[in-house]
Amino acid sequence: MAKDFFGRNENYSQWYNELVVRADLAENSAVRGCMVIKPYGYAIWETMRDVLDKMFKDTGHVNAYFPLFIPKSFFSRESDHVEGFAKECAVVTHYRLKKNEHGTGIVVDESAKLEEELIVRPTSETIIWDTYKNWIQSYRDLPILCNQWANVVRWEMRTRLFLRTAEFLWQEGHTAHATEEEAIKEAETMVNVYADFAEKYMAMPIMKGLKSPNERFAGALETYCIESMMQDGKALQAGTSHFLGQNFAKAFDVKFLNKENKLEYVWATSWGVSTRLMGALIMTHSDDNGLVLPPKLAPTQVVIVPIYKKEEQLAQISEMALKIKANLEAQGITVKYDDRDTQKPGWKFNEYEFKGVPVRLAIGPRDAENGTVEVARRDTLSKEVVNKDAIATLIPALLDEIQQNLYNRAKQRITETTRNVNTWEEFTSEIEKGGFLVAHWDGTSETEQKIKEETKATIRFIPIDSHFEDGKCIYSGRPSKQRVFFARSY
Amino acid sequence: MAKDFFGRNENYSQWYNELVVRADLAENSAVRGCMVIKPYGYAIWETMRDVLDKMFKDTGHVNAYFPLFIPKSFFSRESDHVEGFAKECAVVTHYRLKKNEHGTGIVVDESAKLEEELIVRPTSETIIWDTYKNWIQSYRDLPILCNQWANVVRWEMRTRLFLRTAEFLWQEGHTAHATEEEAIKEAETMVNVYADFAEKYMAMPIMKGLKSPNERFAGALETYCIESMMQDGKALQAGTSHFLGQNFAKAFDVKFLNKENKLEYVWATSWGVSTRLMGALIMTHSDDNGLVLPPKLAPTQVVIVPIYKKEEQLAQISEMALKIKANLEAQGITVKYDDRDTQKPGWKFNEYEFKGVPVRLAIGPRDAENGTVEVARRDTLSKEVVNKDAIATLIPALLDEIQQNLYNRAKQRITETTRNVNTWEEFTSEIEKGGFLVAHWDGTSETEQKIKEETKATIRFIPIDSHFEDGKCIYSGRPSKQRVFFARSY
Repeated sequence: MAKDFFGRNENYSQWYNELVVRADLAENSAVRGCMVIKPYGYAIWETMRDVLDKMFKDTGHVNAYFPLFIPKSFFSRESDHVEGFAKECAVVTHYRLKKNEHGTGIVVDESAKLEEELIVRPTSETIIWDTYKNWIQSYRDLPILCNQWANVVRWEMRTRLFLRTAEFLWQEGHTAHATEEEAIKEAETMVNVYADFAEKYMAMPIMKGLKSPNERFAGALETYCIESMMQDGKALQAGTSHFLGQNFAKAFDVKFLNKENKLEYVWATSWGVSTRLMGALIMTHSDDNGLVLPPKLAPTQVVIVPIYKKEEQLAQISEMALKIKANLEAQGITVKYDDRDTQKPGWKFNEYEFKGVPVRLAIGPRDAENGTVEVARRDTLSKEVVNKDAIATLIPALLDEIQQNLYNRAKQRITETTRNVNTWEEFTSEIEKGGFLVAHWDGTSETEQKIKEETKATIRFIPIDSHFEDGKCIYSGRPSKQRVFFARSY
Repeated sequence: MAKDFFGRNENYSQWYNELVVRADLAENSAVRGCMVIKPYGYAIWETMRDVLDKMFKDTGHVNAYFPLFIPKSFFSRESDHVEGFAKECAVVTHYRLKKNEHGTGIVVDESAKLEEELIVRPTSETIIWDTYKNWIQSYRDLPILCNQWANVVRWEMRTRLFLRTAEFLWQEGHTAHATEEEAIKEAETMVNVYADFAEKYMAMPIMKGLKSPNERFAGALETYCIESMMQDGKALQAGTSHFLGQNFAKAFDVKFLNKENKLEYVWATSWGVSTRLMGALIMTHSDDNGLVLPPKLAPTQVVIVPIYKKEEQLAQISEMALKIKANLEAQGITVKYDDRDTQKPGWKFNEYEFKGVPVRLAIGPRDAENGTVEVARRDTLSKEVVNKDAIATLIPALLDEIQQNLYNRAKQRITETTRNVNTWEEFTSEIEKGGFLVAHWDGTSETEQKIKEETKATIRFIPIDSHFEDGKCIYSGRPSKQRVFFARSY
């Protein structure tokens, strides 16, 4: 275990908070609930963003940018939306400051009050549909497949780095379609893109399904989601894709002439993932020794540390290290050679272990003579000594293996902690152990709400392609046709 | 000239405004002064961002992300800075809305008033230096070379798409150094990066120099800038790089232990370019037929338009077109084949001309039979018919030629409109013709202010490596050692 560091079992929450700060990923700022994403954390987010951006473009989407501010009245237009989003938010009321005439510093200039307050966007459906109104006249203008990378603000009372912050970074896709069928297909396509990304890049196994009406996005007819299971037995919603029906088109009066020359409201979707994915990534793989990163998202995939006492030893080691580095880089692997003389090898070992660098190579004087290298894996913490000539083929394969191993480990955890429960007694005792409980539910919001109040568990998702099965609701005993997935969650 | 479109000479300002909207680059939004950057415009900005981002990383910088909001009191800490930035800005005063109990819609919840107002960042020196305070203890922590891509807000009264908007996108680099010399070198390096980018990618010739104290960034000891000359004879500041001395370190108490183990204030720079570059790009090259884009920043570099009457002609043309497309794409060229049957070729020609696609290939039935292609250049509007087998080598060379030609044209304009003036009479009459006037100035802010009031011209920059030359200030007649560059500007 890393020094002065909480283990996961000791205090999972504190383990997470300290890990994020000590691994140089993010920290709290002077502004309540707003974080600073530090360069190491931002480099991981940048890779996530670049990979996702390419996946969006490969599925026909383009990027655009819409205003940070939304007129207050826009939120009232869609009645469900206002309930969900127009509550805790940052409100801009003035546009000027002036010198304090009666003291020091600066004060708000009361004469510069906005006629209508502006809301810092918590999500952009309203301003975007107000814009789409002017872009859409006929079916020829459809579909519109826009995405935006942006910051959004939701005034959360209890914040945690990456998981829940007042300001966060995200992408929000907003699409407009001529038919209901096409919009539903789009919403499904995008949840599948998120699922692919989570599994292939984050090495994070996920479950996919529909939200219950209680948990749906405010203004959506259907919310598709991906959910993952963290090491403490709590689920985490990692991405959502919403079929919005014609709700926003009606709220903003967006109609188009269809092929039959009739006016019709446009069909909509929206979908997003955020810097919350960073929290999911950290919690899925990391351990008591610090961060563990899947190779595909690691800013540094391989670090090489020289171990030496004399300068001439370093020269010999460096020659070998730089050859290995060049060779791996030619294969597209990111390699750092850390030959700083301000830190000892032991310090460096701890540092890179804590920061989750997937592979560490160490070369000492005897290695340089024998042509060997010590290869250490971050995921298993195992080490082996290999011939330097084997490195060029071994490392790419090892990175793949680590990526796969991380996925498998997490997958096993999900599988082991997902189980059917059939009675309320079983439910209330099993929920304390964490994981997904797969149980019958009578389909009502009241029951879901009661279960939440009594156990803090919510329906994380309703499986889409599951087998239907007759049963009785664990809470009300009323008939049910399908099991749904419950868990406590982030 | 494009139909229903103002020529540059008719009304340059209206020509610009209409061009931006009609070429699908950007439009005004429902929020005063905030623009929507449309997909075509955003694609150009994305390329700019990616190229610049790589240039920043190649010069050792990393990205990070700092909060959108800045506590009001932070602005008062640096006395010059508060004068320059804490005036016209968006002020967040509340964090909740509620249902209007006495009417419809939602209203600000007066019980949710912030103790200290938050300012939407107009620039981030203050919040970043408040953060750096915790990152810096010793010279070993230096330099810090961070950049951030972000949105910022300045409550401008008169806005114009891209050139001056309340919200805009930009990057801001903020670096911390152990020595004055190193910080100055950094500020110079970055203005050179901007100059390289402008000339090599935007094909926009620029002049480089120092701002006069009047025009300096609020809080800087020295502001380096790049300035370009638009077609209407007005200069445009395209990028700035500031040497901030120890001003922000002192304001936020950021000290470090130097190698001699003494506490010292940290030295700083900041530097930025914004979506304003889009305005510069548009105004530098475009003409009465619409947008003209340098190939290196064009989202589509080559468009292929088929001309046909019968379906079997299209089949034959498409076969040839798709081969050409694949061949050019293999060389890294972005090609669009527009075989939509909803629009006529003439419409397509106008469309791509207006959107500034550098090269258009047209293939008709006779071309398909003869194995020829019509190649049209957007920059010169010239056309030639070439053999299809020549296309693969001709197009890459042609794109380079267009890029160079655009640069040369703009360079010639700058050269022709930059001239020495030696008397006040000459100055006041020449300034009406636009361009840079190179004249002696007595070095005082008062004189600069007077010249601005009387002619609307400002000192755009003071050349760095110019020859010193004895002369008399054109306004005051007092002695001067150096000519400086005056112009009216955006």
